[in-house]
Amino acid sequence: MVLAQAAVEQKARNPAAIRKAVTELTAAFGNRVVTSQAVREQHGNTVTWIANQPPDAVVYPQSTEDVQQIVRICAANGVAIIPFGVGTSLEGHVNAPVGGVSVDFRDMNRILAVHAEDLDCVIEPGITRKALNEQLRDSGLFFPIDPGADASLGGMAATRCSGTNAVRYGTMKDNVIALKVVLSSGEVIDTARRAKKTSAGYDLTRLMVGSEGTLGIITRLTLKLSGIPEAISGGTCPFPSVEACCNTTIHTIQSGIPVARIELLDALQVRACNLHSNLGLPETPMLFLEFHGTDASVAEQSKRFGEIAAEFGGGPFTWTTRLEERTRLWEARHHAALSNFALRPGAAMVATDVCVPISRLAECVTETQRDIEASRLLAPIVGHVGDGNFHLTLLIDMDDSDEVKRAEALSERLVERALAMDGTCTGEHGVGQGKMKYLTAEYGPAALDVMVSIKRALDPHNIMNPGKIVAVS
Amino acid sequence: MVLAQAAVEQKARNPAAIRKAVTELTAAFGNRVVTSQAVREQHGNTVTWIANQPPDAVVYPQSTEDVQQIVRICAANGVAIIPFGVGTSLEGHVNAPVGGVSVDFRDMNRILAVHAEDLDCVIEPGITRKALNEQLRDSGLFFPIDPGADASLGGMAATRCSGTNAVRYGTMKDNVIALKVVLSSGEVIDTARRAKKTSAGYDLTRLMVGSEGTLGIITRLTLKLSGIPEAISGGTCPFPSVEACCNTTIHTIQSGIPVARIELLDALQVRACNLHSNLGLPETPMLFLEFHGTDASVAEQSKRFGEIAAEFGGGPFTWTTRLEERTRLWEARHHAALSNFALRPGAAMVATDVCVPISRLAECVTETQRDIEASRLLAPIVGHVGDGNFHLTLLIDMDDSDEVKRAEALSERLVERALAMDGTCTGEHGVGQGKMKYLTAEYGPAALDVMVSIKRALDPHNIMNPGKIVAVS
Repeated sequence: MVLAQAAVEQKARNPAAIRKAVTELTAAFGNRVVTSQAVREQHGNTVTWIANQPPDAVVYPQSTEDVQQIVRICAANGVAIIPFGVGTSLEGHVNAPVGGVSVDFRDMNRILAVHAEDLDCVIEPGITRKALNEQLRDSGLFFPIDPGADASLGGMAATRCSGTNAVRYGTMKDNVIALKVVLSSGEVIDTARRAKKTSAGYDLTRLMVGSEGTLGIITRLTLKLSGIPEAISGGTCPFPSVEACCNTTIHTIQSGIPVARIELLDALQVRACNLHSNLGLPETPMLFLEFHGTDASVAEQSKRFGEIAAEFGGGPFTWTTRLEERTRLWEARHHAALSNFALRPGAAMVATDVCVPISRLAECVTETQRDIEASRLLAPIVGHVGDGNFHLTLLIDMDDSDEVKRAEALSERLVERALAMDGTCTGEHGVGQGKMKYLTAEYGPAALDVMVSIKRALDPHNIMNPGKIVAVS
Repeated sequence: MVLAQAAVEQKARNPAAIRKAVTELTAAFGNRVVTSQAVREQHGNTVTWIANQPPDAVVYPQSTEDVQQIVRICAANGVAIIPFGVGTSLEGHVNAPVGGVSVDFRDMNRILAVHAEDLDCVIEPGITRKALNEQLRDSGLFFPIDPGADASLGGMAATRCSGTNAVRYGTMKDNVIALKVVLSSGEVIDTARRAKKTSAGYDLTRLMVGSEGTLGIITRLTLKLSGIPEAISGGTCPFPSVEACCNTTIHTIQSGIPVARIELLDALQVRACNLHSNLGLPETPMLFLEFHGTDASVAEQSKRFGEIAAEFGGGPFTWTTRLEERTRLWEARHHAALSNFALRPGAAMVATDVCVPISRLAECVTETQRDIEASRLLAPIVGHVGDGNFHLTLLIDMDDSDEVKRAEALSERLVERALAMDGTCTGEHGVGQGKMKYLTAEYGPAALDVMVSIKRALDPHNIMNPGKIVAVS
């Protein structure tokens, strides 16, 4: 079942060229080239309703030079190259619509340097966020960006992802200092020096972050790190309505409280978390919060937040600095999507990802809740509410074509609603194949033409992850 | 005297085409086109040692549509277009090396919307940072980026500038949400929606920020705003050495103190400030600091900073929350460059702008101080030390050609030193004409080729501020 269609198949599949490239790759890389069907299918999209489109081969580079050689072989044969981290992207980013070679960074997962004084580190793209933070722990530093999955850092940069900490720490665009990138020519560039800021020319770092492998392949990242806070407090706060949650969030941020996490769960999502994680929370709209600072400042932040919540009819805000309780809470939050299976065992799950100005969030969420009800669908809502970003988890019986159709239509209306409110079709998941059809509405044809002209300038033969973000013939 | 030479004159000046364009512009805009020599010279570079290269005409648009029409007329005649804010850029950004038309945003200086709940505003590019904050004051919000000059926001975005608050609030790249841009074709694009974050395709906003008018002309900005802090404390702390200043800074940031400003002045700069602003400070290396937060948190931050400073032999840290004293201090800091005239009346001043990883800062500054002494030059140092960015103010007798030569050589060595330390040739001033010659050393030829290919893709006829950032034939 393919609902979000790969918009345009952009170049013809060329079996002879692919065979030749795979032969050359095998000569160069031996058993680090794999062509078994199972492995190839694991390297297409596996996690969402977008159809699996496997590559023709998977290669496991061990160095930037390996990646350069792979790109040169593929370029010489006009064969597509699709970078692969751990395959948790949601919009078909790793699919191979015209075949080609998946470049799996499994073996490039080292931390190359930690510069504690500079609050940065240099890593290979295949390391995952949990492995990175595990290895950083002794330095007193951490990398704050936390998408739901234990994604690879290369993939996180490529999709410009974020997560629950973004309200305080920003997204990948704010936490990547420099990238090493292999271009479609096989040449390698460094997008920036390690200095914290620069005004030296075009911002190639930010151009590559979010480009989803369509302009080049990231082979090294210099990341900004943050100090592990001295003290952390976390808690939950029930509210009479989604509006009250949103208004409390707006006032919390406006009043300068540097909240680290502020997550909305609607009543249905709280119910799912109760069922899955046995939280015993009241089943009303709810904020999950976390504050970072010193003992004194997290106490102050928590107290002030509680006062603001009370003004909007929320509370009591129950919070703690105890590690086990906080961990239990945030594990439940990270399992929110998974916990939805408890609401409808056996259903397929599809995540949406709009983001609107925070002043429009309550309106957007409540209109969407009405739409869900009118569409006779089951779709709990979680939101990175400090950023105006929220996800529906559509729980669908994929064998019920009428229900699938209603879900598809709801998803379309959700994007239209967000765009009408000056929002975006994707806050953090990226475009991939699934969101291509919305970019003209979001940017207009002239801006999309600029994107196409950049794509053509950097990848004139359209071999870098073709069929993603922009359609290039 | 032209020390930093405009690297390559990139297209021939075409007097007939320029005359035709100016005639057409005059027909369209009447007395909003000015060609007097005085006005033209005011629109070339006037503030640094780079020679003044005036445009052939100055036009004052009142709308995006006006800018589109100007671009279409210039494009049809192959004539260069140079955007102009208030002309405070330091690297010849507003010069017209092949002539052309300066587009002065004097009449486009309105705030179009303030969205207090979203912490953003929509403005025209000609408004200056002081005027913006003046008009925002009643909203309880402010825009934190503060270059030395009272620059226009359009120019600040175009040069990716920053200032003393960047250590806490980031640079222009972190505080621009979206831009309206007129392209070289005359078409207009919006680079993003007003949502706080997005993963929808290439980051055109960050591509335009720092592109210095070479890819398009900014005609509207959506800016992120911050809440005016409840409490502010500020003060000064003397140190036995520049190293002690830098080590204190590193530990302050590492320990998670969210310092809002942390500025280094070397002993000579303190002396100049004493002379100019009558501060009565001890003439040793010094940090100027500011903390933002609540009463309790600024007191806590100030106390903890004082303890760290003492560990490195610094102190006493004297601080206050009183507005007059803080204003006196930061006015003195903002007048630091000006105050240097007190050290050498009649001298010309030239500002350098390297930025290095903070771990290398002490080494970079002290090596540079030795170099200044060996070069028999007078050059006080100020630094946005939390970012690793520092400026020498070279005080030069421009009639002494030997001294000018020594200053030029020192400036070259400073950039080489910064690059050798993984730094950048410009932390916040931009490339313009003056820093073009360093970009190959900073990025390497392949990355520079990427910049050139982007320039060609977006401005195929090289009419958008030609002769800046990258050389395009």
